[in-house]
Amino acid sequence: MNAPTSSDSSSDGAVDPTTLTVGVLGGTGNQGQGLALRWARAGIEVIVGSRAAERAENSAKEYCQAAGVDHVRGADNATCASEADVVVAAVPWESHAETLRGLADQLKGKIVVDCVVPIGFDKKGPYPLPVEEGSAAQQAEQLLPESRVTAAFHNVSAVLLADLEQDRVDCDVLVLGDDREATDVVRALADAIPGVRGIYGGRLRNAYQVECLTANLIAINRRYKVHAGIKITDLE
Amino acid sequence: MNAPTSSDSSSDGAVDPTTLTVGVLGGTGNQGQGLALRWARAGIEVIVGSRAAERAENSAKEYCQAAGVDHVRGADNATCASEADVVVAAVPWESHAETLRGLADQLKGKIVVDCVVPIGFDKKGPYPLPVEEGSAAQQAEQLLPESRVTAAFHNVSAVLLADLEQDRVDCDVLVLGDDREATDVVRALADAIPGVRGIYGGRLRNAYQVECLTANLIAINRRYKVHAGIKITDLE
Repeated sequence: MNAPTSSDSSSDGAVDPTTLTVGVLGGTGNQGQGLALRWARAGIEVIVGSRAAERAENSAKEYCQAAGVDHVRGADNATCASEADVVVAAVPWESHAETLRGLADQLKGKIVVDCVVPIGFDKKGPYPLPVEEGSAAQQAEQLLPESRVTAAFHNVSAVLLADLEQDRVDCDVLVLGDDREATDVVRALADAIPGVRGIYGGRLRNAYQVECLTANLIAINRRYKVHAGIKITDLE
Repeated sequence: MNAPTSSDSSSDGAVDPTTLTVGVLGGTGNQGQGLALRWARAGIEVIVGSRAAERAENSAKEYCQAAGVDHVRGADNATCASEADVVVAAVPWESHAETLRGLADQLKGKIVVDCVVPIGFDKKGPYPLPVEEGSAAQQAEQLLPESRVTAAFHNVSAVLLADLEQDRVDCDVLVLGDDREATDVVRALADAIPGVRGIYGGRLRNAYQVECLTANLIAINRRYKVHAGIKITDLE
């Protein structure tokens, strides 16, 4: 089915994510793998996207085996974008603009979830990269003017997501966007992962700092030997 | 006494913050007030700084009364910077550069803790402001080349800090900086507030996203009617 398009802005929690097919562009990478595995296990149909269909199909088979399910399939990115209801961009920052530009038609009218982090690495560790459009998510918004662009899943550890021996991934996912219904759908996708809470985190123009906070979490991981995420306090 | 300057980079937790005198530039503002109150109550000597000495003295009297202590005093910003061991910059972003530029002499050799957030507000809420130097903290670093600049306390709610009826403020404070000993001292100042953990959060070049995450927390406060802060997960 398609993501809901009727206006029901008070529908917190009313979206059943298992009725959605989620496409993951760059689904063979670390973050894409982790998300695909968790959604697959949560009963959500997943299409793993990659430049090469064969690579995506191989990963999909692995994910099915790891999650003990049969509802993950692989496809090239264009097919993934065409056939999914909600499409997650989990590609490297370096190929972010190029990948999305080529998929504007397939992504028309769809909820796009950008989880790309514009950070670089040098000898001193991770650091934020400047983004002309303001953030990866705002770059996506400019490239996909007919899509419903949101941003989420930047700060959740790919290592913990992929470790299915851990039943839960205890952290919060900040979901950003200017379309309330779209952010509610994405929050439901976050909530579908045991332990994760999807929390509205502000408008898309506030995405950059959430994207780049990943650099701080990596610095924390290195200092404290952990797989850091964040939780928002004072929320019940 | 002065902040320790000998090299002991393994001294996690070895700094006794009650031996420090902490100056708070802009100590009559919301964030400055909250921090001054909590440190005062923790037994730390505090100098409230403001442009006008009289205003600072009045606030200091109020804070002494509220915290039930007598070791908070007020002074103009220059005296505050001169007499304190560690100096917190809690001024509005608009006067950040001007204030620090005028105090470079007084702040020489001292640990400076920048907690200023470069964010603006319009009808749609809070949003990050561009900073030529990269972040408020990096601007401070450029203006104070002979100081030991760190960044911290951006994401802790001023409202919760100032509410002394609440014994604890349960959140983490990310402490950023390139000087390990300085960030350890600042972490100890964070740990001195019951409920707060001071956590190393990366080098100063990663300060901008932590500063601007405050915009997201304000968006969360508005949506969920809370006083949000953050906690880092996977740390014991």
